[in-house]
Amino acid sequence: MSASTAPNLIAAVSERRQWDRLMELAKLGAITGADGSPGVNRPCLSPLDREARRLMIGWAEGLGLSVTVDEIGNLFFRHEGTEAEAAPVLTGSHMDSQPNGGRFDGIWGVVAGLEAVQAIREAGVSTRRPIEVVAWTNEEGGRFAPGCMGSMAWAHFKPANAWDEVRDLEGVTFRQALDEHRAAEADLARRPLGGKPFAYLEAHIEQGPLLEAEGIDIGVVTGIQGSRWFIVEITGETAHAGTSPVSTRRDAVQDMVRAVTALNALMTDPTDVLRFTVGQVEVFPNTSNTVADRVRFTIDFRHPDKELLITNGDAIEPTIRSAVKGCDVVVTERFHALPVEFDALVVDAVEDAATAQGLSSRRMPSGAFHDAQFMVPICPAGMVFVPSRNGVSHNPAEYSSPSQLAAGARVLAAALAELANR
Amino acid sequence: MSASTAPNLIAAVSERRQWDRLMELAKLGAITGADGSPGVNRPCLSPLDREARRLMIGWAEGLGLSVTVDEIGNLFFRHEGTEAEAAPVLTGSHMDSQPNGGRFDGIWGVVAGLEAVQAIREAGVSTRRPIEVVAWTNEEGGRFAPGCMGSMAWAHFKPANAWDEVRDLEGVTFRQALDEHRAAEADLARRPLGGKPFAYLEAHIEQGPLLEAEGIDIGVVTGIQGSRWFIVEITGETAHAGTSPVSTRRDAVQDMVRAVTALNALMTDPTDVLRFTVGQVEVFPNTSNTVADRVRFTIDFRHPDKELLITNGDAIEPTIRSAVKGCDVVVTERFHALPVEFDALVVDAVEDAATAQGLSSRRMPSGAFHDAQFMVPICPAGMVFVPSRNGVSHNPAEYSSPSQLAAGARVLAAALAELANR
Repeated sequence: MSASTAPNLIAAVSERRQWDRLMELAKLGAITGADGSPGVNRPCLSPLDREARRLMIGWAEGLGLSVTVDEIGNLFFRHEGTEAEAAPVLTGSHMDSQPNGGRFDGIWGVVAGLEAVQAIREAGVSTRRPIEVVAWTNEEGGRFAPGCMGSMAWAHFKPANAWDEVRDLEGVTFRQALDEHRAAEADLARRPLGGKPFAYLEAHIEQGPLLEAEGIDIGVVTGIQGSRWFIVEITGETAHAGTSPVSTRRDAVQDMVRAVTALNALMTDPTDVLRFTVGQVEVFPNTSNTVADRVRFTIDFRHPDKELLITNGDAIEPTIRSAVKGCDVVVTERFHALPVEFDALVVDAVEDAATAQGLSSRRMPSGAFHDAQFMVPICPAGMVFVPSRNGVSHNPAEYSSPSQLAAGARVLAAALAELANR
Repeated sequence: MSASTAPNLIAAVSERRQWDRLMELAKLGAITGADGSPGVNRPCLSPLDREARRLMIGWAEGLGLSVTVDEIGNLFFRHEGTEAEAAPVLTGSHMDSQPNGGRFDGIWGVVAGLEAVQAIREAGVSTRRPIEVVAWTNEEGGRFAPGCMGSMAWAHFKPANAWDEVRDLEGVTFRQALDEHRAAEADLARRPLGGKPFAYLEAHIEQGPLLEAEGIDIGVVTGIQGSRWFIVEITGETAHAGTSPVSTRRDAVQDMVRAVTALNALMTDPTDVLRFTVGQVEVFPNTSNTVADRVRFTIDFRHPDKELLITNGDAIEPTIRSAVKGCDVVVTERFHALPVEFDALVVDAVEDAATAQGLSSRRMPSGAFHDAQFMVPICPAGMVFVPSRNGVSHNPAEYSSPSQLAAGARVLAAALAELANR
């Protein structure tokens, strides 16, 4: 029996302790959803974010882990291995939330990492490699867009100053917020940005309905589907709703409707794998008795297949141009991420851990975007999912039960111990 | 030769004086449009509105007209006839503007009424009946919705306190604004609400493209098309754009697109007379990576034919219900006005005046809504239109030339003199 499946390691994961930590963190930025559910609004680099980090730091220090931060605010807790120079196994996620967010998205991955390390230490499981738990800065992009800034900078996908001029709704720049944040954490030891981990494994709630619908305990994540995000601006001409003949109008709302209808045809997928969403629509001047001269809408298009992502994504602009009647069209692609595949080393470690613990599991791609995406070029990476009730996320109604989360932490602990002894 | 076609009356209308008054009024609330055009933002019952009224009152008093206001703030200037007890001829329009409005909509009808009365007096044309020039309170509905409050209350279509609780964007109620306004005009003589005019004739810019396109000087308005306004609320469920299968979504944006597409089919009109507009669309939560759970959009539907207005208007809700896929639908009708026809007495007076002056004219319905609508049950009513450049209105780019407006004032003066001697 390997270290990672030792019964004492599995038993050392505490369902209660993990849940209590999550609930204590959920008090910081607590909100109530439309249906009465308790949610969280904790923007990155805010005083609430720092309060949550201090709570986590306290727990980590209590365990004897060393604490460091890098120049973009990524926070690390390090468990030493028997070989101090061996490349570490990295685990974690993010602590910021959506503005109308839930209590589990992101934060559970950090708490579970800490729980796994605590179990490994308390069970006396020896690991050759160090294990580091990370909380990445600004995964959600809710305060400063885009998300995943911390992991992108760490992976040198973008320089750490790439977003200095990005502003939040109050006009504060990311640089100002980060400088204030670093000053408030000046007592923490610094570490350089970047690294060469042996592997990366992120625990996260599914944020989709599949695991719950199929009654499966653990999602073994095989990769992250690709995403292409667009902004479409349609410009026509205002006119009086009562006097201007319909035939002569350049009506931006009507051309938006034509464009979306044509895009729906382009994006039809009988296999229901393709994701096509128009989630944001803004109309100007937006009054009932004036023909709109401008509509701005977003497209969120995702697919696990690279070829389809490229072909259909490239067809978006010509499809819109063919569909509109009288308006001008500008299509801007604001994000383009090809699908990524996780490494068999990590995927197998997760699957083996679930199987060894008698948990049901299935391999599945991640529909959502995660920091793990940016670790793929750096080291073998993977993720473990637990079920989300009704698949709801980015909402206070987001929920995974204490036992579902404990099962996830047990799989994480076993897989981390396994990887840290490679 | 009747009094109304006397050459001295036509010559007494001053193109320059009328234009100068319009331009002086346009300074009060002056704004600049996106294209650099000089526009006006003068909300009803505001200090700017009162300043404009004082300017107009000064000109009226200079002519020797008596000035009165009623309890909802409608402002009257009275020219006495030879028979003091004869029912007066009423003319006028409104002085408030749209928030991003032009220099002519409404205000020209009041200035033209004053110009016509001044010409009648200066030409020494005798009228049996009094002529009253009115500025109706809140026609636009830009600050307090709906519009036409002053004329509706005057015609006893609604009681004068019907809108007491309506609030503007700052939270001020209509009642508070009206009380403040009346206190500021406490020096003006009061008159009771309502009356029994012999006839009503309103001058207004066309706000549509027909007169300009056909090179015609004067629109002889035969009536106002009917309007039905609706608010549609579509409620579905939020979901993560990356994880939720498209087949299981209750996507409010997609159901809005389906609804508008189906309504377009319902509202198809090869004769191009029907007006169907979706001008306002609001999406919630309105973020690019979340399936929207709520869309609210408006419908503005107008037609001069009563039967078609009823049949197609009543088909709106079932059409939407058949079109949507998974969302709940609530359709609320918030305004319902059947088409009105103006009286031959007034229509003929306008047409005859234009013809006698050698001006080209055409009979036409009004596509826009006007205070004249509410005079129809009270007395013979009608309107005279002048061309609008490019049909643009409710925008700083709104424009009618000094000579076009002078032609309109000459027709108004002649028609008023004619009616006032009936």
